[in-house]
Amino acid sequence: MIIKLNLLLISLFIISSCSSNLSEKSDKLNFIVVFVDDMGYGDLGSFGHPTINTPNLDKMAYEGQKWTQFYSASSVCTPSRAALLTGRLPIRNGMIGSTTRVLFPNSKYGLPDSEITIAERLKENGYKTVAIGKWHLGHKKKYLPLQHGFDYYFGIPYSNDMDKINGETCCPGKQYWQKYQNQRPESINYNVPLIENNDIIERPADQTTITKRFSSKAVEFIKNNKDDNFFIYLAHNLPHTPLFVSDDFLGKSKRGLYGDVIEEIDHGIGLIIKELKKNNLDNNTIIVFTSDNGPWLPFESHSGSAGLLREGKGTTWEGGQRVPGIFWGAEIKPGVISGLGSTMDIFPTLLEMSNISIVNNRIMDGISMKNTLLNHEPSKRETIFYYRSREIYAVRHREFKAHFIVQGSYDYPKGSDKKIILEKPLLYNLNIDPSEKYNIADKNPEILNEINTIIENHKKNLNPPKDLLLDMDW
Amino acid sequence: MIIKLNLLLISLFIISSCSSNLSEKSDKLNFIVVFVDDMGYGDLGSFGHPTINTPNLDKMAYEGQKWTQFYSASSVCTPSRAALLTGRLPIRNGMIGSTTRVLFPNSKYGLPDSEITIAERLKENGYKTVAIGKWHLGHKKKYLPLQHGFDYYFGIPYSNDMDKINGETCCPGKQYWQKYQNQRPESINYNVPLIENNDIIERPADQTTITKRFSSKAVEFIKNNKDDNFFIYLAHNLPHTPLFVSDDFLGKSKRGLYGDVIEEIDHGIGLIIKELKKNNLDNNTIIVFTSDNGPWLPFESHSGSAGLLREGKGTTWEGGQRVPGIFWGAEIKPGVISGLGSTMDIFPTLLEMSNISIVNNRIMDGISMKNTLLNHEPSKRETIFYYRSREIYAVRHREFKAHFIVQGSYDYPKGSDKKIILEKPLLYNLNIDPSEKYNIADKNPEILNEINTIIENHKKNLNPPKDLLLDMDW
Repeated sequence: MIIKLNLLLISLFIISSCSSNLSEKSDKLNFIVVFVDDMGYGDLGSFGHPTINTPNLDKMAYEGQKWTQFYSASSVCTPSRAALLTGRLPIRNGMIGSTTRVLFPNSKYGLPDSEITIAERLKENGYKTVAIGKWHLGHKKKYLPLQHGFDYYFGIPYSNDMDKINGETCCPGKQYWQKYQNQRPESINYNVPLIENNDIIERPADQTTITKRFSSKAVEFIKNNKDDNFFIYLAHNLPHTPLFVSDDFLGKSKRGLYGDVIEEIDHGIGLIIKELKKNNLDNNTIIVFTSDNGPWLPFESHSGSAGLLREGKGTTWEGGQRVPGIFWGAEIKPGVISGLGSTMDIFPTLLEMSNISIVNNRIMDGISMKNTLLNHEPSKRETIFYYRSREIYAVRHREFKAHFIVQGSYDYPKGSDKKIILEKPLLYNLNIDPSEKYNIADKNPEILNEINTIIENHKKNLNPPKDLLLDMDW
Repeated sequence: MIIKLNLLLISLFIISSCSSNLSEKSDKLNFIVVFVDDMGYGDLGSFGHPTINTPNLDKMAYEGQKWTQFYSASSVCTPSRAALLTGRLPIRNGMIGSTTRVLFPNSKYGLPDSEITIAERLKENGYKTVAIGKWHLGHKKKYLPLQHGFDYYFGIPYSNDMDKINGETCCPGKQYWQKYQNQRPESINYNVPLIENNDIIERPADQTTITKRFSSKAVEFIKNNKDDNFFIYLAHNLPHTPLFVSDDFLGKSKRGLYGDVIEEIDHGIGLIIKELKKNNLDNNTIIVFTSDNGPWLPFESHSGSAGLLREGKGTTWEGGQRVPGIFWGAEIKPGVISGLGSTMDIFPTLLEMSNISIVNNRIMDGISMKNTLLNHEPSKRETIFYYRSREIYAVRHREFKAHFIVQGSYDYPKGSDKKIILEKPLLYNLNIDPSEKYNIADKNPEILNEINTIIENHKKNLNPPKDLLLDMDW
């Protein structure tokens, strides 16, 4: 009897100490969106990579939800980021270019002020909001994160290979690979600014310590805002080439420099989770982890792997837009989810999970994943549009993907950049044939018809505004 | 003080109830080796497949060890099985053929009596031993499992596509694919015998229920032998084509018939673990899960996927011989292991884990993995030989793999079967470049020299006996 009573007391004590922190806080969740750059579908242990060691992300995938058919809204950087932050296809706000595919240091525009970001809606609802890392939605002050709903910004305004100096070469076809196979890139060759809020604080940014600094900033933000609700947008600018790691991680991975970079990012996520747990915030914080597009294959061993998927960054094959999707924390019900998801779904999902309404004076492309995250209900998303150069190259509907235009990217391999408007569309069943090998168009004309109808309906409400990536200042 | 004392009492009670079963048993472990047929490196959720749902194997991989650079000793069936069961390269015992690659229903020979199998050594040490599933080491009585150390056998003697009747076609290039794309294969077209011990009990074996029956036999064997030490060799004959599933699993997987088959195997493993736990045997039983070789790619959507690896079954590219390796149970320390391992290592590992000596009057190719399994010590294996047609086509030493001969397989794609003896070997760093894309031979002549020395030394002690796969009775 004494034992029983004491057990009860012990249990009560444990329960009360576990929940004490929660009960003092609002019913809203905290959110951390980790968005990495050019990491492929196959670059995490839990997504099948043999030699990149990602214990923290693997644990998140196992304890939370691993989404295996999760898509970025674009196969390149700027439109992909615009889509995640606004929940809308970039064709709706000018953030996808007809010829220029991303913003550059001399680009004239950025994400329009009229767009509403996740951060804006959360900030309006009392959240502390921070953007850490790569922005790439306009480098001029009026386009920077502080003007898009973030309380604080620490990061670089565009890609880490831009603003080349000293005759540095960056890109496929320009001997980057020949130069760097056995040599580390140097920050000094890229005149990339590091910005805090609206001001440049370091130029060129020391990229060797940048991943570490971004992770630390996230940890610090959690520590300083643990009594408020917070939203952290942590957009690492790596593993986009040129690759940089801190000395702590150099040579750590069997996978070489690319693996070192991923392992440093993974390590940082471990520190973030540790900080959450230390403050009893893991039960009311959700971490989302994903990538902006597939691997930049021409960089060969300095690029990632799309695993079993075809092609990579820049293309509308699966390797270009399908990315790892990991959702962890709070009440997420563990499991592997093979329903469709999109980075655009993050916006409505986060808002719905904290009972915040979505502004509804505009077309949203995101669809809330809440019921899948909490109860494994089937994903409501049925369609993925694969846009390139403001055109629909391909459409996935349920398991079927039709290609109407095919094109390689970065002229890798040589000659592959030719745009081919197909007379007969290609059709693949991606559930059965994720590598897009076996064309089944001939036997399924009714599915192609269905997809054509979907495209017609989609275009009815589109009215794309001006291409904002085209104009340059100089 | 009362609380403390009571807590101590409770703890002691918990500890004693957990270990009560163990203390009554010998210090030897039980072993279950699950060996599937033609499943690719990329066909499990935990190895990156997006739409094959393998919760039981994923859980094993997460709770136990997931080996990401684990190899079969051959890219086809018969030599692969001989190697696993004997811990020796098949070139040492005639189980690899110069022209005929596996045993057929009219083959004259089988695994020689002089060979010692894992089962024999364990049986000599008091284990109850059972072989369930595909044997493929000789269909004649004198070669069957009962004559190789097993107390009981229930399974088919060769591949499930052999003994074709009714004009059935089986093989790539013979329109199997065109016929079966939208149709289930039928058992009646393959006159495969189901054998219990040494007798045929069913012919043709009903293959639709065969996976289910094999799993049940394993569960039953655990139940009936729970008070003894046991060794179960569960060699599913699927997902080798033609693919069969029970009605319970037909249409269950998003991946189609191939996925249904894998999910039925995974389900059976769940039943085995359930039975182990029910009998408190999970703490002293080790389950090993692996595949005999890579996916049989010409069967297209009826074949599996090698994930990010190049090529598949029949070739000495990574997709032919690298397979998932999962080790679960007892005191195995959880983790992802990217050190080298081989199916041949299973023999010495199991024996060492139960303190049973290896017979040492012969050359063993297996190397114990015990210290890696228990303590994450680096794997002792440094070399993988890729044999085909009794020749060394390729050798991996540490991270480097040299190809001396390259050849496709099954003439898929058309014309790929041509054997090319390379004037200049190809060299890949598999840790950095698992897909074998970037030849680094020119820059690393010293590594090629080292590998050539390894081959010379290896050949000194080889003395290959007669090719036992060549001769046929009719």
